[in-house]
Amino acid sequence: MITVEQAISEIMHRLPIGRPVHCPLDESVGLILSEDIQSDIDSPPYDKSLVDGYAVIASDIQTNTRLEILEEVMAGQTPTQTLRPGTAIEIMTGAPLPAGADAVVMVEQTTREDSVVWIQQDAIAPETNVMRQATSLSKGQTVLAKGTLIRPIEIGILAEIGCPNVPVYQRPTLSVISTGDELVNASEIPEGGQIRNSNGPLLSALGNACGAQARSLGIGLDNFEALSELVEQGLEADILVLSGGVSAGVKDLVPGVLAHHQVMQVFHKVQLKPGKPIWFGIAKSQTQTTLVFGLPGNPVSSLVCFLLFVAPAIYKLLGSQRNALVSRTARLTDDFTQRGDRPTYFPACLTEQDGVHYVTTLAWKGSADQNTLSQANGLAFFEAGEQFFTKGSEITVYEIPS
Amino acid sequence: MITVEQAISEIMHRLPIGRPVHCPLDESVGLILSEDIQSDIDSPPYDKSLVDGYAVIASDIQTNTRLEILEEVMAGQTPTQTLRPGTAIEIMTGAPLPAGADAVVMVEQTTREDSVVWIQQDAIAPETNVMRQATSLSKGQTVLAKGTLIRPIEIGILAEIGCPNVPVYQRPTLSVISTGDELVNASEIPEGGQIRNSNGPLLSALGNACGAQARSLGIGLDNFEALSELVEQGLEADILVLSGGVSAGVKDLVPGVLAHHQVMQVFHKVQLKPGKPIWFGIAKSQTQTTLVFGLPGNPVSSLVCFLLFVAPAIYKLLGSQRNALVSRTARLTDDFTQRGDRPTYFPACLTEQDGVHYVTTLAWKGSADQNTLSQANGLAFFEAGEQFFTKGSEITVYEIPS
Repeated sequence: MITVEQAISEIMHRLPIGRPVHCPLDESVGLILSEDIQSDIDSPPYDKSLVDGYAVIASDIQTNTRLEILEEVMAGQTPTQTLRPGTAIEIMTGAPLPAGADAVVMVEQTTREDSVVWIQQDAIAPETNVMRQATSLSKGQTVLAKGTLIRPIEIGILAEIGCPNVPVYQRPTLSVISTGDELVNASEIPEGGQIRNSNGPLLSALGNACGAQARSLGIGLDNFEALSELVEQGLEADILVLSGGVSAGVKDLVPGVLAHHQVMQVFHKVQLKPGKPIWFGIAKSQTQTTLVFGLPGNPVSSLVCFLLFVAPAIYKLLGSQRNALVSRTARLTDDFTQRGDRPTYFPACLTEQDGVHYVTTLAWKGSADQNTLSQANGLAFFEAGEQFFTKGSEITVYEIPS
Repeated sequence: MITVEQAISEIMHRLPIGRPVHCPLDESVGLILSEDIQSDIDSPPYDKSLVDGYAVIASDIQTNTRLEILEEVMAGQTPTQTLRPGTAIEIMTGAPLPAGADAVVMVEQTTREDSVVWIQQDAIAPETNVMRQATSLSKGQTVLAKGTLIRPIEIGILAEIGCPNVPVYQRPTLSVISTGDELVNASEIPEGGQIRNSNGPLLSALGNACGAQARSLGIGLDNFEALSELVEQGLEADILVLSGGVSAGVKDLVPGVLAHHQVMQVFHKVQLKPGKPIWFGIAKSQTQTTLVFGLPGNPVSSLVCFLLFVAPAIYKLLGSQRNALVSRTARLTDDFTQRGDRPTYFPACLTEQDGVHYVTTLAWKGSADQNTLSQANGLAFFEAGEQFFTKGSEITVYEIPS
């Protein structure tokens, strides 16, 4: 059986390259730039005033200076006059600095009488309240590099430098199928032997949280034809995630249905707990490569497998430099005994106090125990083998994205 | 002039209560529960098998045990037979445990010959691979408390316990108007005296990132009627954010237009840098209370004011217990000189190494310098007054949400 690291490597080196597309500016938050972005303008585009006030010649200003007002320049207007000694031009924040001016006196420091302004400052240094053309950035300058994550701040910058359609890597599409005759929808009342489909909503939400565009295809019954039809739809996406149907039970149809659709198995079963039965394969058509993940059917195994194997694939398709889960070192708040022959990823609660991270393993009642999960924001990692960890031991914890 | 803390308090105690609504499960990630949620089922709903294998009577199992197979129970089916000594029932992961059984042997530990199964284990403890009814949660139990943030994990839990429509606080609506005759859209080429509207996209993106439902109303020209019409539309939202038009310049129409629409001023100007000219007021109609923020027109001031004053209002309307920015203590990576009579929020880059947070203030060229902002993920805070901070000094940094 391969290790988690081997499994991740098998997935990652089969990934196609993210698809560069152009995305409207207001939909691009959370995506990654697929090209360097140059400015098409100087910023500021001209020498400009940083305040509302009077553009002046700095050397004019002494105690009780009186200046003649030549004109008023509003934002969006350009000055028409050139300052000469003894004159000022009224100017708004952001307006171009008039020729001849080298400083701006704030309006609060002035008194106006008709076409004359009295300056209440005794002196002003040249360049005061002035921002020179191209101080912030120059036309042609690379402002944001390929690979940059677009946050709200970058949205402002992209708007400023004239990029209403942003070159980014497209969100990978992700289809989710929950398999099993025992499943009913969240809106239904389960009867004898039935349980609600919680994996479908969980996995779709995780997919969206990681940056994919997830679509739930609903419940796939344990019936070759019905499942086959759903899988065919699912293979239109970049990633198809199935939950259930991959262990060794009689009705585990998933591997058979996938083979029928020319999905080539890459691996089945990985040394980990929970999540050992995970299945991974690739489907390639002329137009589409689809990564296919068969996750174990219980919610905690599904969650762990999604985070370890599916999330990094999404990040890489998105063009992110982060192609793994974020991990940190944290101190155990209680003793912990690790048992078993597989590395274990245990739902846990990460906290921080005075810069130190602490981890509390949760009283987890088996891999179908979702209730305990509501306190989990991390996966505590323990190597394979019998081991006793005392309170305060430092272990690795992977963060669960929220 | 009031302080930042006074301003926040003025805003917070005027906030209406978040609006409880029901939201479809798959749209509720990121929202906050407005009610406690009880389970409508036991989970598991019955004693169930955790593996694919054979349900047995544990005391039957000795070296080389041979058991007669009574029936096969698939997931979604219920057993019809009762186990008696010497018999087994084949069972799938998740299927109900048959009456009389108290353990399940994994299929990998068995060999089947027609209607007989040979067990390759020498013994099995009672309860092995069995999860008893209601171990995870009981019908009627409060599973998720009012105030809980819905993450993908909670989506799985809500699906399991039968909550397809989730009681949450509605995302507050937020309208954004950028004012100023000098503004053109991101898709246009600015001419003399013009600049692109970067605040509109920035503030809308920040609103969405904080959990609001933002809508950009575009550019409001410096003309009473045009601006008045936009403001009227903007007042249909829970929050109206205007950028520009609130300082002391001749054409600063915003306060006048707002007064015309019965927006009552609460404060104008706050002791902070950048962002001093911020204006805040409230509009109340019979059906709607709208918080109105007039932010200074330059991008860095807009960003700082949004984060300090608008974001906490959004969090509170969303029902979040986090109604302020997240702050942390970090060590300066360089010497820093604070000047000026107002507390300063300086764009800065927060990093972490070995659990220690570091902050690098950015070479910021004034409040219109957006380019520098692309490296910022925090706001470094410095008290008012001349002060010299040596490298390594600990200061407070507020995180910028991404």
